[in-house]
Amino acid sequence: MQEAKKIVGRYAATYVEDGMVVGLGTGSTAHWFIEEVGRRFQEGELQHIITVSTSDASSEQAKALGLPLKSLDDVNHIDLLVDGADETTRQFAGVKGGGGALLHEKIIAEHSNKIIWIVDESKLVNQLGKFPLPVEVVQFGSWKLFDAFESAGMNPSFRKSTEDSLFVTDSGNYIIDLHLEEIPHPQQIAMEIKHMVGVVEHGLFLNYANIILVAKADGSITKIERSRVERK
Amino acid sequence: MQEAKKIVGRYAATYVEDGMVVGLGTGSTAHWFIEEVGRRFQEGELQHIITVSTSDASSEQAKALGLPLKSLDDVNHIDLLVDGADETTRQFAGVKGGGGALLHEKIIAEHSNKIIWIVDESKLVNQLGKFPLPVEVVQFGSWKLFDAFESAGMNPSFRKSTEDSLFVTDSGNYIIDLHLEEIPHPQQIAMEIKHMVGVVEHGLFLNYANIILVAKADGSITKIERSRVERK
Repeated sequence: MQEAKKIVGRYAATYVEDGMVVGLGTGSTAHWFIEEVGRRFQEGELQHIITVSTSDASSEQAKALGLPLKSLDDVNHIDLLVDGADETTRQFAGVKGGGGALLHEKIIAEHSNKIIWIVDESKLVNQLGKFPLPVEVVQFGSWKLFDAFESAGMNPSFRKSTEDSLFVTDSGNYIIDLHLEEIPHPQQIAMEIKHMVGVVEHGLFLNYANIILVAKADGSITKIERSRVERK
Repeated sequence: MQEAKKIVGRYAATYVEDGMVVGLGTGSTAHWFIEEVGRRFQEGELQHIITVSTSDASSEQAKALGLPLKSLDDVNHIDLLVDGADETTRQFAGVKGGGGALLHEKIIAEHSNKIIWIVDESKLVNQLGKFPLPVEVVQFGSWKLFDAFESAGMNPSFRKSTEDSLFVTDSGNYIIDLHLEEIPHPQQIAMEIKHMVGVVEHGLFLNYANIILVAKADGSITKIERSRVERK
């Protein structure tokens, strides 16, 4: 599977053109994308690109490769964002946030003109829900939110960093993972969760990606493309 | 007007019964409520109350008065919350957050069985909007949100703590004040704003209060009561 991630990560880099502002995703597949963008930059093909990163890890990788890095607030918009996903359907409904960076990933995605998700075939599902849905919540009163999720039968668990301490996001919040098993109506649950007081953001990314590149173990890549943008 | 605030703050304390979990609001009117609850506690009338505070300032005041103070996560719910508002209509649509504590105030309000707002008559309006609507936003990408508010004609300004530095909330976020002048459809704008990625919470409190006590300059108090609870 590592080889498949490498192939699709590198392939996604062929979408990058010189002069673009490029959003760098996070994770083991995005790693190979960044690596290949770095190679093309060093060889002079992409001399005028600017990159914007979704996480500290990807920023470090970009810096090591010498890529020009700016913050989101210092660019007008992002031309192309290439990122992974923890689960996605063919209808462009995905779950992200396994790495705990969903808030910054979604903020970057909001300002990206084109988004490509790169995944291995194990991430492509008919229905979301097997992967726990991460919800970023304000620390203050978070146990009350936890109780609310529990009462609603949503099987919450606090994300931990060690056995004794809760995971804290880059924006200083907690993450509650909802073990839903099935998400038959992603739009509805996205709205309900975001509406809750204390919720900062959730890991449902609905109609964000324009293209999903799916890598199979045999090294082939399937491309799923969406023409109309109906972000919700 | 100080005298009016004092009268209505003290009057609101008559709603407190022994054994209650009492939410303590923030501000110059809530100050007098807390003072009176403290007096009744010290005189033995309210020996078994527990208080939960919406801000550091009110916590300090409660401690100085010897009131038993707990955090929200350590109580089951709040029986009665008494708080101020920056603007409110007779239809129980209000704006809060002038003091920058709207997020914690709203989280506390979510878990309160009964809410009384105490205001002087200058806060009672026919339409919301003269008072700037505070929106608590994640620091990351906040200038992009600012631009979005500006493009939408919502006259945003970042809340400052000094001339050179932005105000940071207790949860580590920024506040963008929207100078709307008129909010003809509070429900709709509340939904739109909360839905934006990067927004943590906004200062529109719709159908939270059960009772509004309005103090007039002549010392009289008008009581506006809502029987059905339709929180939105």
